[in-house]
Amino acid sequence: MQKLPKIILGIDPGTLLMGYGIIAVQGNQITMRQMDILRLPASQDNFKRLLLIHQKVEALIREFRPDEFAIEAPFFGKNVQSMLKLGRAQGVAIAAAMSARLPVTEYSPRKIKQAITGNGNADKEKVWKMLQHILVLPEKPRHYDASDALAVAVCHHFQTQAGLPPVASPKKNAVRTQGAWNQFLKNNPSRVRR
Amino acid sequence: MQKLPKIILGIDPGTLLMGYGIIAVQGNQITMRQMDILRLPASQDNFKRLLLIHQKVEALIREFRPDEFAIEAPFFGKNVQSMLKLGRAQGVAIAAAMSARLPVTEYSPRKIKQAITGNGNADKEKVWKMLQHILVLPEKPRHYDASDALAVAVCHHFQTQAGLPPVASPKKNAVRTQGAWNQFLKNNPSRVRR
Repeated sequence: MQKLPKIILGIDPGTLLMGYGIIAVQGNQITMRQMDILRLPASQDNFKRLLLIHQKVEALIREFRPDEFAIEAPFFGKNVQSMLKLGRAQGVAIAAAMSARLPVTEYSPRKIKQAITGNGNADKEKVWKMLQHILVLPEKPRHYDASDALAVAVCHHFQTQAGLPPVASPKKNAVRTQGAWNQFLKNNPSRVRR
Repeated sequence: MQKLPKIILGIDPGTLLMGYGIIAVQGNQITMRQMDILRLPASQDNFKRLLLIHQKVEALIREFRPDEFAIEAPFFGKNVQSMLKLGRAQGVAIAAAMSARLPVTEYSPRKIKQAITGNGNADKEKVWKMLQHILVLPEKPRHYDASDALAVAVCHHFQTQAGLPPVASPKKNAVRTQGAWNQFLKNNPSRVRR
């Protein structure tokens, strides 16, 4: 009997857009299931936008039945107002995952870039190129917010693949990347250009 | 047949404590149903604390079956980090209310104080005294965080009683207090000391 693939839902919530990406992992094989954005019209009430985020995450969980949930979480922002709004957007997305009893892990943008490209300062283009390589994706993403979310999911896979399970960790929200890149290179020698 | 009272759940979420207060409104009669705090141990993981908030709000909704949900929402804070955390705490509480299809309204601390005491700069003691008077409460609250949450619920009642229903309003998150205090005095002449 074939083992079911592990499904990871990655989310990059913002106040005007939410990116999401879903990957399926089976053995060494990682495939993309979906990658897109949800638009949150500025014309809408703040609470309406939070509701849209919450409902979308719920709908994605119903459709793809992920086993794990990973979220991109910047720790710094322009001002307290924007951080409060961002925190709310993250909060309603996290609540949808918690309601479905999914383990939640967060990663900083820097750590995601590092896990995917080996460089914490890599630009979106570079992250995309690497994702394209790993997931065998044919073309450019329509939105980098969507590929960012896909990167969160892939980052989470690398982290947990590296022998650091999210549930057993004493701090689920701790950012874990150490060793992941090296582990990836070790596990995927064919992907290293010499 | 007697009409059912309107139940309002007021929430004051923080990162270490969440205050909550429930009132029942029937005609001119307002009674307190519950007022307490939920402690969020600092020793716990951030996500565990968000889960505790979310589960508590869900449990309060199951137990008291509120018709409306009001939340105290400061718009300014010390720093971006603390505002992100506060936003998340608000977000998971709001998500629990949204899942139960409750209308959500937010009020700033200043507007709550103004609605309850007529003075936006009133201290917690003053707010409590007025709440005690309105709800015929016997003693001091064990925690001012709990009475703050009760104040949100009472504030919301005054706002909606004043002819500004939360659902029909174009901006549900708009802070509405104008006229509420005058309306309260008009509706409750016996409560005015001369």
